[in-house]
Amino acid sequence: MTLDAPRTFDQRRKDTLARFENDVDVWVSTADGTGVPCLVPLSFLWDGRTFLLSTARASPTARNLHTHGRVRLAFGATRDVVLVEGTSTTAEVADLGPGEGAAFAVKTGFDPRDIRPAYPYFRITPVRIQAWREVNEIAGRDLMKDGRWLG
Amino acid sequence: MTLDAPRTFDQRRKDTLARFENDVDVWVSTADGTGVPCLVPLSFLWDGRTFLLSTARASPTARNLHTHGRVRLAFGATRDVVLVEGTSTTAEVADLGPGEGAAFAVKTGFDPRDIRPAYPYFRITPVRIQAWREVNEIAGRDLMKDGRWLG
Repeated sequence: MTLDAPRTFDQRRKDTLARFENDVDVWVSTADGTGVPCLVPLSFLWDGRTFLLSTARASPTARNLHTHGRVRLAFGATRDVVLVEGTSTTAEVADLGPGEGAAFAVKTGFDPRDIRPAYPYFRITPVRIQAWREVNEIAGRDLMKDGRWLG
Repeated sequence: MTLDAPRTFDQRRKDTLARFENDVDVWVSTADGTGVPCLVPLSFLWDGRTFLLSTARASPTARNLHTHGRVRLAFGATRDVVLVEGTSTTAEVADLGPGEGAAFAVKTGFDPRDIRPAYPYFRITPVRIQAWREVNEIAGRDLMKDGRWLG
């Protein structure tokens, strides 16, 4: 198999941000406090700085995010990886910015504000971002560390 | 958007087993004991009953699997979901069945037996399997519960 040449940092960042902007769903990995993982696909909204998610308050994902505030997000396929480590804070409807609830509903196709009992939102701040396709892109896969874009 | 008709149980099982047989990589979600999730793509071998994975002994995934034995696997895209909940047991090279190490190397393109220090294997037994594409397949998404195929 011939691999494409590894992408530059700038190309990876561009591809990664395009994915944050255009993808509808993301794999969301969370953990309880006893070693049990949860992994589900959820719709999200990216505002250029944070991801906004929402899911039922009683779901394992919501409980894990609310209790521990730690998350990993995986975008795309296993051979075109974008992995995000982030911290999560719980937000109610009143905590959203102007137009944010509407933007979320348009982007995701569902509106947590219309659900009874209302779904909470979770605001994910990326701390680490990695992007790679094949083995020749493992070097240079770090795009963000400690919340700062590298390079 | 017009959705395809929801697949029957038999079709979903067939599609799911084809994915277990043919996919090379899977998203692997694990947890430490303090609420921190890990999510990485790994190659795997399906033997018709269990998944075989391998990763560096010092990696968070290996530590989480070895300590807690709990895992979620996600195959494919977020709009063609196959989700597996499983239990994991650690296996060394000596624990593999005849030909299993070679089969793993052929399928995945890497051979943990050749690495020094040797990578351990992890044998994942599925306990719950779900498969769905769009919202009209949420009903009937359970294919296996408590380790038994339904229907």
